[in-house]
Amino acid sequence: MASLRAAARLRPSLTRMTPQSFLRAQRAFTASALKAAPSAAPSYITGEPAGPTIKTEIPGPESKKAIKDLDTVFDTRSLNMLADYTKSIGNYIADPDGNVLLDVYAQIASIPVGYNNPALLKAAQTPEMASALINRPALGNFPSHDWAEVLRTGILTVAPKGLDQVFTAMAGSDANETAYKAAFMWRRQQERGGAHVEFTEEDIASSMLNQAPGAPQLSILSFKSAFHGRLFGSLSTTRSKPIHKLDIPAFDWPQATFPLLKYPLEDHVAENQKAEAEALADVERLITTHHLPPCAVVVEPIQSEGGDNHASPAFFQGLRALTKKHNVLFIVDEVQTGVGATGKFWAHDHWNLDTPPDMVTFSKKAQTAGYYFGNPELRPNKPYRQFNTWMGDPARALLFRAIIKEIERLDLVTNTARVGDYLFSGIESLAKKYPGEIQNLRGKGQGTFIAFDSPRRDEFLKKAKGFGVNIGGSGEKAVRLRPMLIFQKHHADILLEALEKIVKS
Amino acid sequence: MASLRAAARLRPSLTRMTPQSFLRAQRAFTASALKAAPSAAPSYITGEPAGPTIKTEIPGPESKKAIKDLDTVFDTRSLNMLADYTKSIGNYIADPDGNVLLDVYAQIASIPVGYNNPALLKAAQTPEMASALINRPALGNFPSHDWAEVLRTGILTVAPKGLDQVFTAMAGSDANETAYKAAFMWRRQQERGGAHVEFTEEDIASSMLNQAPGAPQLSILSFKSAFHGRLFGSLSTTRSKPIHKLDIPAFDWPQATFPLLKYPLEDHVAENQKAEAEALADVERLITTHHLPPCAVVVEPIQSEGGDNHASPAFFQGLRALTKKHNVLFIVDEVQTGVGATGKFWAHDHWNLDTPPDMVTFSKKAQTAGYYFGNPELRPNKPYRQFNTWMGDPARALLFRAIIKEIERLDLVTNTARVGDYLFSGIESLAKKYPGEIQNLRGKGQGTFIAFDSPRRDEFLKKAKGFGVNIGGSGEKAVRLRPMLIFQKHHADILLEALEKIVKS
Repeated sequence: MASLRAAARLRPSLTRMTPQSFLRAQRAFTASALKAAPSAAPSYITGEPAGPTIKTEIPGPESKKAIKDLDTVFDTRSLNMLADYTKSIGNYIADPDGNVLLDVYAQIASIPVGYNNPALLKAAQTPEMASALINRPALGNFPSHDWAEVLRTGILTVAPKGLDQVFTAMAGSDANETAYKAAFMWRRQQERGGAHVEFTEEDIASSMLNQAPGAPQLSILSFKSAFHGRLFGSLSTTRSKPIHKLDIPAFDWPQATFPLLKYPLEDHVAENQKAEAEALADVERLITTHHLPPCAVVVEPIQSEGGDNHASPAFFQGLRALTKKHNVLFIVDEVQTGVGATGKFWAHDHWNLDTPPDMVTFSKKAQTAGYYFGNPELRPNKPYRQFNTWMGDPARALLFRAIIKEIERLDLVTNTARVGDYLFSGIESLAKKYPGEIQNLRGKGQGTFIAFDSPRRDEFLKKAKGFGVNIGGSGEKAVRLRPMLIFQKHHADILLEALEKIVKS
Repeated sequence: MASLRAAARLRPSLTRMTPQSFLRAQRAFTASALKAAPSAAPSYITGEPAGPTIKTEIPGPESKKAIKDLDTVFDTRSLNMLADYTKSIGNYIADPDGNVLLDVYAQIASIPVGYNNPALLKAAQTPEMASALINRPALGNFPSHDWAEVLRTGILTVAPKGLDQVFTAMAGSDANETAYKAAFMWRRQQERGGAHVEFTEEDIASSMLNQAPGAPQLSILSFKSAFHGRLFGSLSTTRSKPIHKLDIPAFDWPQATFPLLKYPLEDHVAENQKAEAEALADVERLITTHHLPPCAVVVEPIQSEGGDNHASPAFFQGLRALTKKHNVLFIVDEVQTGVGATGKFWAHDHWNLDTPPDMVTFSKKAQTAGYYFGNPELRPNKPYRQFNTWMGDPARALLFRAIIKEIERLDLVTNTARVGDYLFSGIESLAKKYPGEIQNLRGKGQGTFIAFDSPRRDEFLKKAKGFGVNIGGSGEKAVRLRPMLIFQKHHADILLEALEKIVKS
């Protein structure tokens, strides 16, 4: 924190300004960040700027022109910022107007090791990658002779403890949906008496009519404010926001209460324990009484889109115990939390479970997707039951392998744990100083996976750009930080500085 | 056909042989194919072999070893053939045992312009591609400054007539599901009274509970034996085979009769017209009476996975008219038929519709996916309604652009139409010669999108490999041909020759 305060003294005050002086101050701020940085540890990515550069408002004139043009062929109403990736580097995202922002949103938490990371660039330029790109196989039918090796030296090297198999997919939504499909097949197989028992004529005939028993009256249990994707099955388990769900038919699947913890945690111990116990009781009630029996519970280690809602390891241990007790599968959705961001490779590593989850889904920072599993009973009993044309993408699997190697080479999970602690302390100080502006700070000990609530969240995020920082939100009022794994102490200082300026402005 | 018959005289008879003599004959056959080829027109892909090479049974010893190893980490029960893509070229797929097969299955119809196509290799090695691979954006939030240009010089240059917008996706399943979502939002918006009418409190509250009206009791109408993907929404419209559907919960959506035409078409005109009229009547009945009103009809131009079932342009014109009459959207699923295989860029170009389909979905040979649309009302009325993190893949969009350029450069759609006619005539002759073995030949005038039924289909496909050809099946008994767009007359001759050998063996 000393360096933060020292850095803060370098910056001009930004309170009560005209738009013109505001812009001047922003430029001065980013210029001083540039000057301040050389004393810091070197960036992991060579050539990364020492700080943000703000040249225009965002979007600036060039961006505005390009956005107007893009809108004729592509819906731009959710556009946040037009980017120029050829000029983006490391933790910094550039735009066509010459603005360069510290990016702690990172493509909705999906850039792992920095823009234009040289190691990834190298992997992208190998003959192996070119072949994977242009000779894309139907993996289930015609895998490449070296597919086992690609899996074994890449995706499987980071398989969660106890899970040694993977089913590859395209993105988070279908990773979850294929995991759900595996769960339904597993449950019906149990009901039939095992893998060797054939489908009945009734199963076969009714499945073709979308009717039970072939299309069973079973469910996946998820939690209130959960997000698991936006295709029809995954959206039925998503309960984040109405705008995600409105007008789309959904399965009548159950949603359990998620414990809404109060912060700071140390001041609400009993209350929070009670909330978690009640949530677990709700899960058990739904497992045992819902009219569409759940065959799996799916949960995010930290509810991300839903507003960065955390629960304790004890809660997740309880969930694992409940699912075991009732013979229900336990699916952990690590699409947003996985691949190092919480200071462990998988967020569920924080829980110290006795038995591993049954399936762990991944995507985003992996730049590919799928689900891990260990129990051989989760391989369906016949071929072509879990199948599609591409079943993932070997080019993206090669990229994930390069990402893993880069994470290991630079020890980036450790880095994220350490920098996360530093960043959390810094924001904690700010929260004490500005209790009306930074509320419910959460994510302590969870790497850089940190969030807080802002009473003026949307304005907060908009202002952040003016101070050279690209930040995202989640839920109704959370500011969510999702830096890359190459986010270092000197980046944290710039972010902390900007956060204070935003709050004060 | 003259050249086919001439080529046939070169080959030894393969009927009634011992396994040893069978293998010897196969070798002789492929050797003679190699000799015969130089007289043919040059291949589009330089370096393509003149014919197949069979060195071992398939899988051979090297493949068997690798498959056994792969099975420890990847379900290999649907494995058809282990491939070595570094040695595959043009129309030819290689394996680790040195076998090289003429590939008319082409990764389930998804390789457009040949293995290791030099133009695609060049595109895969550009700095632009490397950047797209390693700097993958959240497209809806942070599109690249040149995304409009990538769309406009690529995907949109081949947009079906009347459709000038695209929503990009990852694969066929989610392309269809996002199109379905657009349809549901469109219908509910109409019911509300237009894009300007806000959601009701009841809409909002019920959507979060997966209940109507927020999660509406509406449906997508599809056809018996249709295939539209295997995620939960798309699988609810898929009616191909029980193995695709068993044990997976499904929406209670309606399925209409698909006309099962009799062949040869010219001998069953009245019967087939009646079948199509009945199917249309069934569609109208379901649109007007189903308890979950359909807001869209989805149809494949040729039912592919379901067994290569065709219908006439008149049928599809009738379908378009019916959907217009009842204010239901018309979605054409061109995932397998699109991108040139039927001798037109889009198979629905064969229909001469008065008004274009409302949405056309694509994937496979495009090597990327999505849906085209034209009506601005199909853009949802608010941002973030049709949204996900990646929303497609710019790397794959660049590849599709290169594919399109290659198709144009070599005029491959015309090639496919022409070679398709030649191939169809050749198989027609074989069907007359072997009426018990080649039945219900279909796909006349549909490029190389040709199929026929075999009473011993699975055996047929297996034997084909021994004769140097990789062929796929569809439905219960169809042999489906899905050559690449670079499939030429001399490849057709090799295929025809092999087909006869298979039938005779």
